[in-house]
Amino acid sequence: MTRIAFLGPRATFTEQALRSMPEAAEAELVPCTGSPAVLAAVRDGSADLGCVPIENTVEGAVPAVLDGLVADPPLVIVREAALAVRFALLARPGTALGDVRTVASHPHAIAQTRDWLAARLPDAEVLMSASTSEAAAQVARGEFDAAVSAPLAAEQHGLEVLADDIADNAGAVTRFALVSPPGPLPAPTGYDRTSLAATTQNRPGALLGLLTELAVRGIDLTRIESRPIKDRHAEYWFHLDCTGHVAEPAMGEALAALHRRCDRVRFLGSYPRATNGATAAPSTSPLPIGGADAAQFAAAQKWLDAVRAGGAA
Amino acid sequence: MTRIAFLGPRATFTEQALRSMPEAAEAELVPCTGSPAVLAAVRDGSADLGCVPIENTVEGAVPAVLDGLVADPPLVIVREAALAVRFALLARPGTALGDVRTVASHPHAIAQTRDWLAARLPDAEVLMSASTSEAAAQVARGEFDAAVSAPLAAEQHGLEVLADDIADNAGAVTRFALVSPPGPLPAPTGYDRTSLAATTQNRPGALLGLLTELAVRGIDLTRIESRPIKDRHAEYWFHLDCTGHVAEPAMGEALAALHRRCDRVRFLGSYPRATNGATAAPSTSPLPIGGADAAQFAAAQKWLDAVRAGGAA
Amino acid sequence: MTRIAFLGPRATFTEQALRSMPEAAEAELVPCTGSPAVLAAVRDGSADLGCVPIENTVEGAVPAVLDGLVADPPLVIVREAALAVRFALLARPGTALGDVRTVASHPHAIAQTRDWLAARLPDAEVLMSASTSEAAAQVARGEFDAAVSAPLAAEQHGLEVLADDIADNAGAVTRFALVSPPGPLPAPTGYDRTSLAATTQNRPGALLGLLTELAVRGIDLTRIESRPIKDRHAEYWFHLDCTGHVAEPAMGEALAALHRRCDRVRFLGSYPRATNGATAAPSTSPLPIGGADAAQFAAAQKWLDAVRAGGAA
Amino acid sequence: MTRIAFLGPRATFTEQALRSMPEAAEAELVPCTGSPAVLAAVRDGSADLGCVPIENTVEGAVPAVLDGLVADPPLVIVREAALAVRFALLARPGTALGDVRTVASHPHAIAQTRDWLAARLPDAEVLMSASTSEAAAQVARGEFDAAVSAPLAAEQHGLEVLADDIADNAGAVTRFALVSPPGPLPAPTGYDRTSLAATTQNRPGALLGLLTELAVRGIDLTRIESRPIKDRHAEYWFHLDCTGHVAEPAMGEALAALHRRCDRVRFLGSYPRATNGATAAPSTSPLPIGGADAAQFAAAQKWLDAVRAGGAA
Repeated sequence: MTRIAFLGPRATFTEQALRSMPEAAEAELVPCTGSPAVLAAVRDGSADLGCVPIENTVEGAVPAVLDGLVADPPLVIVREAALAVRFALLARPGTALGDVRTVASHPHAIAQTRDWLAARLPDAEVLMSASTSEAAAQVARGEFDAAVSAPLAAEQHGLEVLADDIADNAGAVTRFALVSPPGPLPAPTGYDRTSLAATTQNRPGALLGLLTELAVRGIDLTRIESRPIKDRHAEYWFHLDCTGHVAEPAMGEALAALHRRCDRVRFLGSYPRATNGATAAPSTSPLPIGGADAAQFAAAQKWLDAVRAGGAA
Repeated sequence: MTRIAFLGPRATFTEQALRSMPEAAEAELVPCTGSPAVLAAVRDGSADLGCVPIENTVEGAVPAVLDGLVADPPLVIVREAALAVRFALLARPGTALGDVRTVASHPHAIAQTRDWLAARLPDAEVLMSASTSEAAAQVARGEFDAAVSAPLAAEQHGLEVLADDIADNAGAVTRFALVSPPGPLPAPTGYDRTSLAATTQNRPGALLGLLTELAVRGIDLTRIESRPIKDRHAEYWFHLDCTGHVAEPAMGEALAALHRRCDRVRFLGSYPRATNGATAAPSTSPLPIGGADAAQFAAAQKWLDAVRAGGAA
Repeated sequence: MTRIAFLGPRATFTEQALRSMPEAAEAELVPCTGSPAVLAAVRDGSADLGCVPIENTVEGAVPAVLDGLVADPPLVIVREAALAVRFALLARPGTALGDVRTVASHPHAIAQTRDWLAARLPDAEVLMSASTSEAAAQVARGEFDAAVSAPLAAEQHGLEVLADDIADNAGAVTRFALVSPPGPLPAPTGYDRTSLAATTQNRPGALLGLLTELAVRGIDLTRIESRPIKDRHAEYWFHLDCTGHVAEPAMGEALAALHRRCDRVRFLGSYPRATNGATAAPSTSPLPIGGADAAQFAAAQKWLDAVRAGGAA
Repeated sequence: MTRIAFLGPRATFTEQALRSMPEAAEAELVPCTGSPAVLAAVRDGSADLGCVPIENTVEGAVPAVLDGLVADPPLVIVREAALAVRFALLARPGTALGDVRTVASHPHAIAQTRDWLAARLPDAEVLMSASTSEAAAQVARGEFDAAVSAPLAAEQHGLEVLADDIADNAGAVTRFALVSPPGPLPAPTGYDRTSLAATTQNRPGALLGLLTELAVRGIDLTRIESRPIKDRHAEYWFHLDCTGHVAEPAMGEALAALHRRCDRVRFLGSYPRATNGATAAPSTSPLPIGGADAAQFAAAQKWLDAVRAGGAA
């Protein structure tokens, strides 16, 4: 039976995202304490796959995930899920909003519902928990009156939803990644993403050169983030999410170019872009200047082959 | 008396960083729950200044800070501090390492000391707290035996340091920013940093164009991070930290260029680069290709003035 | 009285172009042998201005002009004229096409009318002359039967036009430049051209860097040509014609940038673009990405001034 | 027997360059009137190969050659020769310098020896001829006293060298190209040049994009020249000479990229760089940033193949 480690505890947004992935259907889902523990479980073989938040999470583990992905031995992302972040106020059955004297949650969840709490529960004491799920558990144990949490935690802990959709800013989306040891790649779907990380020499224009390799081949970026390299002054890993699949000629050529140019490149996976969240719609770039289109690449290669064979050009 | 809000609770790394800044010497320091609360306090005038982590923090608030800085009304960074992150194991006086059955801390701190804990306290139960400081408070109250925390918390909570420098990876540094409403800028020191954020149209090469404006003027990047814009599909704020001061011609010209090119640009401050951490040493870029040097700019301007006046060129 | 040297002899396309310029109205026009002689006459003061072909000429003097413009002392272009090149077959009055046994012209003019001559005068002997005008003079002296020449030469030498518009490719245009010692610049008209030349270090990407300085400021190129520098292995002058006037902020900033970046830069003039030839219509660039617009520059500068003064940004 | 057309008349620099090429050893050399005639002869099969000046010539045919090369049907360059341009003063045997009353030559040759003529023959009348060789012929026929010409013309016309190396600027070099219909390419030598021409849409940055495709692949330019496209307003052929051979991966990938990006691309040949002139020495680029090195390309491709096969990266 497939074992999938995930950022725990149970009943958080990460478990909710994981359950949306087909790999979770028949698998044993194993909560871990912290994203580094998830990655470690996949690396040491105690789990076959791992699920971690990778962007815009309310629980804040992203830098640790990025740093962890470039460690050794290699891991690759094989699937992503985008989850609209939705906060609910959970309480024990029978609790009315007017009864709530104490509210607990993870600090980030508190921060993202601050306005709602101030307006609707101005007199309640707000307390911090280690996670939104832990807050729900504490409510279930009677330690606090209410928790700001993923709706999923209600069922998990036998609570009721006192108020739903209480985030001050609707529309926040978190991306989650399913990571695996290297192996056969997910097949291209025509709507894929490739994640990679690279380091360059520390000189002006180095990042520009790296991005130019992508741009000239028509590859669009959907995320970029620099992460300082531990113990090295002023050196960085650049984490990039790009449109396309490494099996396609544009992305393949770009990756080979980065391999020539950069001190280190880590391929972190090509996988279908999530279709159940805000990033679902195909990009409609008004200016496909470089030609990431496979047909263009094939036509250009055919022409080049003719030129090299001494034909008319 | 100056009031400075900071990411609380007391006795965390943020307070330690704040205390290293001259502004803190005579000020009232006010802990807030969450970085958004710190920024809100400065915006609503309940604090004069605010101190928040901005990069590589163990407590994970960075995305919230970035998103918060580009909100309205404007805020600017007026100082930074770089703090070598140092974890200690704290316990009540008289506790020996062999007595420790339970260890509490923030999940990120646990993650960063996992190896040490596994080697030295293999049988201890590890528990999560809302912050490293809260864990220390819990130890002081007798709820747990030991806390992984900043050494500062020992004094704060009447604890002793059972073991110091227990991070698995030494050398991690967190940067903290002191933010203020707009006002007179810190004077250039010759070793400054400028923070800014910009949005561009979502088309291939847009980020490349933005970075080219910096590169051609010899401006080096020390950090880049994209943040999705809430409620807008596939649009991003790019957060950039650059070398130089807006009062200098290279940076001024570059900022004006971004103003022309980008949909939105936010100047987030020019301030001295921290000298007490890993980012202290002046960059020794081997290839100053663009000419960020003020003397070069002055010479070029003088030549241009002569050309425009009809002189020989 | 103003003296204007021009590439002679009389009655060539250069004189025709010069006569279209307002400066020629009251001036003494002095033919010189070769474009270098024209430039020399302006440099040594024996002429006030000089007129030379600068692009796509049928008489081929362009490389010599480019090399001559970057010599010392400096010269600048103050006006250009674009002339649709039009060849006619000239003969003495009373000559019929069937009488023509010999045709003379400059080799380039012969080359550009080869098809017409082959079709209409298949049996005529074709002979070379030093210029199209000299060929006309030779016809006037009775040495040959007909000359391929500018129509202007008919009047000059008392000849008649046997056939007009005989170029094999209609639509060829030659640009001519009026050069002057440095002095007050022509006023911007909103539809100007700036000529410049620059040298860079011989390393990959050097030209790219130079062109990037123009592109990021929204400046379009209308001509580029590399010329090897005499006696220097693998070093080049790059000759560029750009849209815009040095008095405008975009071009001024770009020129200052080239001054910082390049080993040498020569400003070769800002002057109205010719409106009587093929290059007359305003460019309708579909993508003004950089912002060469003066209003954008002014707005950006105003914003920068506010930022530097500590205002909100 | 191979027939090679060349820019005539006989005894000019073009014939001298052609005779330095191995293909000329056993061939019939056929002078043509004008470079267009040379190209036409190769296209219509009346010659197997053609030799024309392509850069920096004293006889000025270069623009016609560039325009001619991109016409149809296709032609490619298979060899180049670099010739140090050397002018001599030729006269009939027995003539002394003091006897020279008239000097004839092509206008460009006159221009390039103007200072010498002014100093040494201040009283001689200077007259124009259709070519340097024609001037020598005229001297041989007794029409003038002396000719400025290639030394080769002395032998051809039974003249003597009155003075050698009389160019005002020593060191000028002309490049000549041997053109052929498409066929098997010259083998790579490790020190090759590739000529190509491309057109792009007329929008800001179009040329920059084109050059970026070369620069990111470590390909250096040795010549660039824009040529207006006949009958099209503001559209250009960009003629480029680059280091490298199309059989090499860097150049192949770059050409394919241009094929995707540009409206039209013409491959104009890969051939050994001339070693007998000023461009002989290998370039010692201080900054091979892109990686034109075949070994780097092979290593990158091997890595990419492993990534695509699901291996560790």
